Amino acid sequence: MTLSPDPSALGADIELAVPRVHRYSSETPLLRLSWLDRLIDGEVFLKAECLQPTGSFKIRGALNAMSMLTERDATDSVVAFSSGNHGIGVAYAARCLGKTATIVVPNDAPRVKIERIQQLGAGIIFYDRQNEDREQIAKALVSDSTAALIKPYDDWHTIVGQGTCGVEIAMQVAGKLDSAIVCAGGGGFAAGVGTYLRSRHPSLQVYTAEPEGWADHQHSFAAGERLALTETRPTLCDALMAPEPGALTFSINAQNATRGLSVSDQWVVTAMRLAWKHLGLRLEPSGAVGVACLMASPQQFRGQRVVVTLSGGNIDPPLFESLIDSAGEAA
Amino acid sequence: MTLSPDPSALGADIELAVPRVHRYSSETPLLRLSWLDRLIDGEVFLKAECLQPTGSFKIRGALNAMSMLTERDATDSVVAFSSGNHGIGVAYAARCLGKTATIVVPNDAPRVKIERIQQLGAGIIFYDRQNEDREQIAKALVSDSTAALIKPYDDWHTIVGQGTCGVEIAMQVAGKLDSAIVCAGGGGFAAGVGTYLRSRHPSLQVYTAEPEGWADHQHSFAAGERLALTETRPTLCDALMAPEPGALTFSINAQNATRGLSVSDQWVVTAMRLAWKHLGLRLEPSGAVGVACLMASPQQFRGQRVVVTLSGGNIDPPLFESLIDSAGEAA
Repeated sequence: MTLSPDPSALGADIELAVPRVHRYSSETPLLRLSWLDRLIDGEVFLKAECLQPTGSFKIRGALNAMSMLTERDATDSVVAFSSGNHGIGVAYAARCLGKTATIVVPNDAPRVKIERIQQLGAGIIFYDRQNEDREQIAKALVSDSTAALIKPYDDWHTIVGQGTCGVEIAMQVAGKLDSAIVCAGGGGFAAGVGTYLRSRHPSLQVYTAEPEGWADHQHSFAAGERLALTETRPTLCDALMAPEPGALTFSINAQNATRGLSVSDQWVVTAMRLAWKHLGLRLEPSGAVGVACLMASPQQFRGQRVVVTLSGGNIDPPLFESLIDSAGEAA
Repeated sequence: MTLSPDPSALGADIELAVPRVHRYSSETPLLRLSWLDRLIDGEVFLKAECLQPTGSFKIRGALNAMSMLTERDATDSVVAFSSGNHGIGVAYAARCLGKTATIVVPNDAPRVKIERIQQLGAGIIFYDRQNEDREQIAKALVSDSTAALIKPYDDWHTIVGQGTCGVEIAMQVAGKLDSAIVCAGGGGFAAGVGTYLRSRHPSLQVYTAEPEGWADHQHSFAAGERLALTETRPTLCDALMAPEPGALTFSINAQNATRGLSVSDQWVVTAMRLAWKHLGLRLEPSGAVGVACLMASPQQFRGQRVVVTLSGGNIDPPLFESLIDSAGEAA
């Protein structure tokens, strides 16, 4: 499985996926926020994936992987394991493509993510994040039926789908781009977006953005090999709690010479407050971690043109309100 | 002043204004919200002008009018009277175009609007909405100096700038459009957007959206003449408290056979809550009045393809939180 994929083949597949993904999702806007421009004395472009119909970029991979499934297998039911956003994406794609979906979700997932999955008509199976293995549960479900497993990140077609976000960025930004900061759980978004952007801007530096305590990409890139975390810490970033990069995603990200950034929850909340104040956008913590990394290390990006993903906006309202109120003045 | 303008001249001017306006503002996204589609058993397209760098569509008219000024007068200072959003637009355009701006603002304007104007480096002169005439104050300022007055709506170049939003909508929607619901204070946004959209979709019906108690457009269209309100009521929609349509805007809107809708503040809050819950977007009350009109009269739009403007998002945080909390469940 740990093949070394050809970047030009991945880039070509990503371009072919655009119409499949756009059929049921949005070309999201690239927003500007002059306060961030001044912070780095450069230009910051914010890719607002939180405005997708499902509230996150995961809709892209789900739509592409499930469209490909139709072409190959003609199966009518799918299974996915997900901390929430991928589950919403799969439930949404199932409704668009006329399939039934079952989502395996941790019982401590945000209520709003569970509700969105249910409202889209998918079945839910809960599991205990501490004591059960979600992949085992999902695989048992698949082996008991004809359902196809839609993986959240470590799958070619999922990565290709996420990469369509990079095609939009490349079309939306005129001129050079120096860096891209992409939120990373399993690393599929960074792999897809990074590969496509580097095909258009060969000297572009890709960074994964992770919460402190879950910086498996940062550690793995530094070590030059795929490492699993031996201990983790609580974080607000419920969508980014993956203890190890995917095998396929890591091989792609390593080939792209991607580097890792990580940041405290305190910076994440400051970034959420900035987006809310200046853009009127609700970000979930996992969706703000890229901006948080930029805000924590502005000197690293001085004078650059940087694209940063705002990857999702699904957060329970009481938590959002308490974080916004508690964060103090942002800017 | 109440000439009858040629719609094809206006449409042509609007297309020419696009590069002037896009140089310093965004092509905003057209968002979908499936709950609204189901409500009217049709398709609803939400034009998210709240995502402009200034938080409202007013940036368009300000940029166009002030760019034209540079070409004609070469004056370095401008004056505007505004309930807030036009003032932010003029202050922003002044910074982009290297001018100094003075904004005449009511002393009860939302704090966040005043702060944005100040942060952009413009001077502010406060007036009392009840006892002073803002137009007189601004005109005195202009006659005492070489400054140019940038009108908020009743000006050809301002209307042309607002119309660039219609060019984007026409490019973003494939296929027919039946109706457009456009928030209206002085009517410049409806005049520009309506004229352009009807040039591309001749049978499209344009509606102005106003808060109850400030439905001067609705009354004027019904009477077939420009009427001033004799009494008004308090409303949350601080940006739409114009007691009379503009002379030029009314002649354009009447020529477009525009009709008027109005809606209670209660519907406005319900619409704000819907946008917050499903899209993660902060709307100000005036920016939600179009969606509120749709929600209040869904039968009127049954089976249609409707575009609705989300015209702005500048609201003081404590008011926003109290309205969102008080609104009950939206959908």
